[in-house]
Amino acid sequence: MKITLIGSGRLATQLGKRLFQQEHDIIQVFSRSLSNAEKLAELIQAKATNDLSEINQPCDVCIIAVKDDVIEEVAEQIKVDTLVVHTSGSVSTNVLDSHKKYGSFYPLQSFSMNQTPEWEDLPVLVHANNESSLNRLQRLAKSISKNFHIVNNEQRKQLHLAAVFANNFSNHLFLIAENLLKEKDLSLDLLKPLIIESVKKIEQASPKTIQTGPAIRNDQKTIERHLNQLSENKQLTTLYKLFTEMIQTEYK
Amino acid sequence: MKITLIGSGRLATQLGKRLFQQEHDIIQVFSRSLSNAEKLAELIQAKATNDLSEINQPCDVCIIAVKDDVIEEVAEQIKVDTLVVHTSGSVSTNVLDSHKKYGSFYPLQSFSMNQTPEWEDLPVLVHANNESSLNRLQRLAKSISKNFHIVNNEQRKQLHLAAVFANNFSNHLFLIAENLLKEKDLSLDLLKPLIIESVKKIEQASPKTIQTGPAIRNDQKTIERHLNQLSENKQLTTLYKLFTEMIQTEYK
Repeated sequence: MKITLIGSGRLATQLGKRLFQQEHDIIQVFSRSLSNAEKLAELIQAKATNDLSEINQPCDVCIIAVKDDVIEEVAEQIKVDTLVVHTSGSVSTNVLDSHKKYGSFYPLQSFSMNQTPEWEDLPVLVHANNESSLNRLQRLAKSISKNFHIVNNEQRKQLHLAAVFANNFSNHLFLIAENLLKEKDLSLDLLKPLIIESVKKIEQASPKTIQTGPAIRNDQKTIERHLNQLSENKQLTTLYKLFTEMIQTEYK
Repeated sequence: MKITLIGSGRLATQLGKRLFQQEHDIIQVFSRSLSNAEKLAELIQAKATNDLSEINQPCDVCIIAVKDDVIEEVAEQIKVDTLVVHTSGSVSTNVLDSHKKYGSFYPLQSFSMNQTPEWEDLPVLVHANNESSLNRLQRLAKSISKNFHIVNNEQRKQLHLAAVFANNFSNHLFLIAENLLKEKDLSLDLLKPLIIESVKKIEQASPKTIQTGPAIRNDQKTIERHLNQLSENKQLTTLYKLFTEMIQTEYK
């Protein structure tokens, strides 16, 4: 397909490279910074611009991969008559309704600038405001991953929320563990085998069936010992109590 | 070494098998259930008993791998004159002080009955009340893993606490995500690549350097949207706000 790519950040870069690798034709790349646009455009044999009014070449899909809060503003400045999609997990596709055909093309992964993700199994979630656009997005998704799905606005927002719990908040738990260990001159390295083993388990089983620890055992002695160890830190005490309560409610 | 093993649960079973595999001599296995003792004893060519007064064969180390709250009671019934250790993360070694030589031998992993863990890199943490016992435990730890360390009671307790945050609580976050997704007919499978990718990152970098999401971006619009989505669930609202506040405090 012929594709226009708006953005040059982590997602735009990895997605652009993958589309190029899978033999799509990237026509134009836009970034507010011309040098960033040029850098990405060179990698994927596209034309670079930092002027949205120059986004005027015919294409099959225009992909807006910019920060959530500028999607609407950018979309309104794009005048090319084609299917326009954004790549955001949490923004409704309605912000694109200045266009006739619009939708979302959401690769659910945390991208970095330099590391190529494993695209084969990467979930790509698509949605569009009409049948033929949806078909086009499914074909595009299928060309870059085996793991593509149709997901409406409400579902996509729920996925984004769930990802915050599963990803951002769990990463903060790892940081809390690291900070606790540092207090006693210990390294998080000691816990990494345990963390990795636990995450491997959820590849096979629901997290519901593999919970362990003092909360689910109702091991009041250990819980009190832990709260004692945390007594100087109010936030961690609150967090520990809340999780313990939630786990005990879940399994009672 | 000649070893006596008290217990036949997940840890006792996996540890017994590893010690046997590494050519230690398991003399006796105790379990309250004779059939469980016999089952494990057969695997590791030991003698089985369900009577603590029969634990009387000379050995180099007696390993107590039973539930935290019965360690002290079991230890007091063992009359063999040798180095006695327990395998608990959260119990002080002082509960063993009815013995002259005592300590802890703590393999930091979540064990299952049927799956052999990767012992080569599994952290084994040792502590003893005298130098020669500590040397003996270090030799024993070294024989089953490259990743062994001396860790005192206070450090071991902190590790256990940190593991509750990094392991039990993060698993509960995965369950929260699964429950949120179910509400919208979606499967946790969609998030697994993201979860696995994030955990891979902490093998290389501190969780401090890889945090993403609306809290660290101070993306108030998305945070409000998420709280709106959670408005019918008080506990999740509290948890979301607490994490957001903690992340923003950590990185401000």
